[in-house]
Amino acid sequence: MRREITGFSNPTVKYLRGLRDKKNRRREGKFLVEGLRLLTDARETGRVPEMLVMAKGRDAHPLLDDLERAVMIAGGEIIETSADILSKITGKENPQAVAGMFTEFDTSLQALDRDAGPIWMVAQALRDPGNLGTMLRTCDAVGAGGLILVDDCADPFSVEAVRASMGAVFTQQIGQAGWEEFIAWLRQGDGQLVAASLRDSQDYRSAPYAAPCFILVGNESRGLPEDYEMACDLRVTMPMRGRADSLNAAVAGAVLAYEVLHQLEH
Amino acid sequence: MRREITGFSNPTVKYLRGLRDKKNRRREGKFLVEGLRLLTDARETGRVPEMLVMAKGRDAHPLLDDLERAVMIAGGEIIETSADILSKITGKENPQAVAGMFTEFDTSLQALDRDAGPIWMVAQALRDPGNLGTMLRTCDAVGAGGLILVDDCADPFSVEAVRASMGAVFTQQIGQAGWEEFIAWLRQGDGQLVAASLRDSQDYRSAPYAAPCFILVGNESRGLPEDYEMACDLRVTMPMRGRADSLNAAVAGAVLAYEVLHQLEH
Repeated sequence: MRREITGFSNPTVKYLRGLRDKKNRRREGKFLVEGLRLLTDARETGRVPEMLVMAKGRDAHPLLDDLERAVMIAGGEIIETSADILSKITGKENPQAVAGMFTEFDTSLQALDRDAGPIWMVAQALRDPGNLGTMLRTCDAVGAGGLILVDDCADPFSVEAVRASMGAVFTQQIGQAGWEEFIAWLRQGDGQLVAASLRDSQDYRSAPYAAPCFILVGNESRGLPEDYEMACDLRVTMPMRGRADSLNAAVAGAVLAYEVLHQLEH
Repeated sequence: MRREITGFSNPTVKYLRGLRDKKNRRREGKFLVEGLRLLTDARETGRVPEMLVMAKGRDAHPLLDDLERAVMIAGGEIIETSADILSKITGKENPQAVAGMFTEFDTSLQALDRDAGPIWMVAQALRDPGNLGTMLRTCDAVGAGGLILVDDCADPFSVEAVRASMGAVFTQQIGQAGWEEFIAWLRQGDGQLVAASLRDSQDYRSAPYAAPCFILVGNESRGLPEDYEMACDLRVTMPMRGRADSLNAAVAGAVLAYEVLHQLEH
């Protein structure tokens, strides 16, 4: 279906604009993705937006034609509107010429395919959506199974997280759970839980990793609670040659993930 | 000197508030740092703000007392004001109870001590201040000499970069230069220039690094220009097991820096 929207107070405009707020996303189970590149990443991994919003006067682009076609075939809705209204929806002064609405994915642990990759990343109380998206991007790069968000983390479906993921939000599995639920799920099968830690830990280069390896990274300011670290099978640490005693959470996860990848492949 | 400011239109308030804009920082050569933790990091590395702004009604804290004393001894200015005015200065609804103003450091290449560390990070056209601060933090962690910003990068003295650096803006040397100037400076002495690259490159784990090693990372969307890569002594690549062909710039730099650190130390 195709229609045009010309009014700022149109209910669809209000609905889409509302998806910038986490509580509305939660209630509706929908999220917004901006830009032809991310929407093309989504399409190439089999995810087509239910609603595609395009600014009139945009430049023609073959990938945009492909996207339109995919939305039509999937029975989705295509909305043409002004650049100003698209700007109102996305909250940006210079929005990309296209945005799409998707249904949020099932993030229950039961929905995860544990065999999807030899490495998993697990973030605990990660607050920064940019860090979250960056971790998803790293997951993709190391061929991980996915990212599991433990306790109260930033929203993986926020615009910032989706953008920082560079499309990995569509290729990586995402789980969300409290700590107790996560541990119970993890211990149902094989899985080595490895904490990036400063306590009672060994050097990250000589630690014996085993697949499937779950790399646990803590909150940006507080790190991991001690009892969480103690529940891990392995605590490893990176050299710290300067004044500080920690790395950015996404950086720590990535340095560790690349070390695990190397060991598992050699 | 100690004084109280009660008016929103006070010229000092306007001046400090103006330092949130890059063009004002450039003109005045000053920058703002928020929060007791960062200001304490600065003090511990011998940097004391020229002006300290404190909100009345703040909680007492021994580190704040130390900071006040250091500012007094250094002949700086202490300003007491309301939480609302501090909020206006920092642009945050819930500002930290204290902020300080510093003179920007000399970032000319001539001012850098090349012997300060065996690893240097070099960022080209890096646009995200969070990535820039994260790279400074990683520099500190690997005991680097510093971070060199080539071409048009984000401002290392922006509030976002300073915050993401977790204090490393005070411990790491920072250089700024165009590419030609950087290369001329680099080739005046020893130094291996290593690009994180996809072209004509070898695996990052088996490449022969040598100190001082300069790790070059490119712009977030475009990567490095081809002629920049070709000017490097070594081009290395990280495994990419997923759909994407690149990592976040700060992540790529960190994975590489930790590999270089390991090789140089073993």
